[in-house]
Amino acid sequence: MREFRHRRRVQFYETDLVGIVHFSWYFRYMEEAEHALWRASGLSIADPESPVGFPRVAATCDYQAPLRFEDEVDVVVRIEAINKRSIKYACTIVRGETTVATGTMTSACIDKASGAPFTAVAIPEDIVRKLTA
Amino acid sequence: MREFRHRRRVQFYETDLVGIVHFSWYFRYMEEAEHALWRASGLSIADPESPVGFPRVAATCDYQAPLRFEDEVDVVVRIEAINKRSIKYACTIVRGETTVATGTMTSACIDKASGAPFTAVAIPEDIVRKLTA
Amino acid sequence: MREFRHRRRVQFYETDLVGIVHFSWYFRYMEEAEHALWRASGLSIADPESPVGFPRVAATCDYQAPLRFEDEVDVVVRIEAINKRSIKYACTIVRGETTVATGTMTSACIDKASGAPFTAVAIPEDIVRKLTA
Amino acid sequence: MREFRHRRRVQFYETDLVGIVHFSWYFRYMEEAEHALWRASGLSIADPESPVGFPRVAATCDYQAPLRFEDEVDVVVRIEAINKRSIKYACTIVRGETTVATGTMTSACIDKASGAPFTAVAIPEDIVRKLTA
Repeated sequence: MREFRHRRRVQFYETDLVGIVHFSWYFRYMEEAEHALWRASGLSIADPESPVGFPRVAATCDYQAPLRFEDEVDVVVRIEAINKRSIKYACTIVRGETTVATGTMTSACIDKASGAPFTAVAIPEDIVRKLTA
Repeated sequence: MREFRHRRRVQFYETDLVGIVHFSWYFRYMEEAEHALWRASGLSIADPESPVGFPRVAATCDYQAPLRFEDEVDVVVRIEAINKRSIKYACTIVRGETTVATGTMTSACIDKASGAPFTAVAIPEDIVRKLTA
Repeated sequence: MREFRHRRRVQFYETDLVGIVHFSWYFRYMEEAEHALWRASGLSIADPESPVGFPRVAATCDYQAPLRFEDEVDVVVRIEAINKRSIKYACTIVRGETTVATGTMTSACIDKASGAPFTAVAIPEDIVRKLTA
Repeated sequence: MREFRHRRRVQFYETDLVGIVHFSWYFRYMEEAEHALWRASGLSIADPESPVGFPRVAATCDYQAPLRFEDEVDVVVRIEAINKRSIKYACTIVRGETTVATGTMTSACIDKASGAPFTAVAIPEDIVRKLTA
């Protein structure tokens, strides 16, 4: 399964009054890595031409060490499972040798035209093939 | 155990290109409710006078329905457990009769003076008493 | 011209490592007040049925005093001018007697169907009437 | 005067329901470039050892073209003026040949120990020298 390493630096506006990155940002870091993995696979998670979209159905994060302004981190995202109608990612955020956090994100494949509630559909074969190449 | 209901409206900048609230925002909604619960208990989560702080050690969210601009939601936060050195919250986000999401947040009680890595310490009795009153 | 007073509390995730609200948030505070003014006028800035939208063409803010976690502020938004194809707002953010910031936002009225670049069009009369009632 | 070019890609969570980057993000893009300029000058805007800080006193942005998910932009920041107690930056955001936005940010140099209200002080010579090298 595909894995992707996304490097980024902690920005000022991501810190909070404690002087560390706010916990909500870790989910955005993980998503940045996911979308970079898609680009590296020749895909866009939000292709206007595509009939499907990938909203979240679950997300988790365990925090092991704080991050501070200007830290450089690697966000490693790995596709843990591609099911018929969903994808699960496992992520690790590291700063040098230190594991900062581990997390997961699960997205359903939905028919964009379905409105609310969304209708889950099979992930298109082209996407499966590129994500698993 | 204490429970608190926090009402808020979805803001424009919380939506993404799909037209729904970005998944990272649900964690901020849950945190808003947590801090409102603390205020309702006569406390501030970030009291400058206090020797302790409460960084996250874990957070999870399961998404059941999308939220859109100007939706009004209730974020119900409940203290699920107060352990010696940590607090776990269970949250439910509802829009009218619809359950939109459920989530959890766990925070450690740390000695603010400890720098990194943080040192977990016992939650002060005054805080335990007020949160469980 | 219409004026609207929007009250809100500073949230934890809006603060930065200096312990004050990050300057980018003031623009979101002003926008919240703008959208509340629209609602109070019987309108939504993002009505899916409407053929027009209102992207920003300019925004300014002057910062007079810092804001801290849990401060309660009033964001007063006033329509300074409704031109044929644009609206300009003047805002003041106050905490009690203290003026915290003043700012402006200007939005163009565009044809949603126009794609990029957007085409500016006349503000629909219904909107002008309700905003100036 | 120093100028710095900061490249970055538009992230998913920066877009709003219109499908374009929310206007508040442009200020964060400009700040990212400012802090990168400081790093390129051998400085950190938030050096824990430094007695001074640089809160905003003013910010402006004029928006010329929308930005969309996965666009790559260059944020060009230039120090327009270093006064005794403040610094003014001029920024241009470009995507390829297209000017997307222009903006300014002005920060005061304050004594970190001064609490609120902040006391403006002279910018340390070491900082002036490095920023103008």
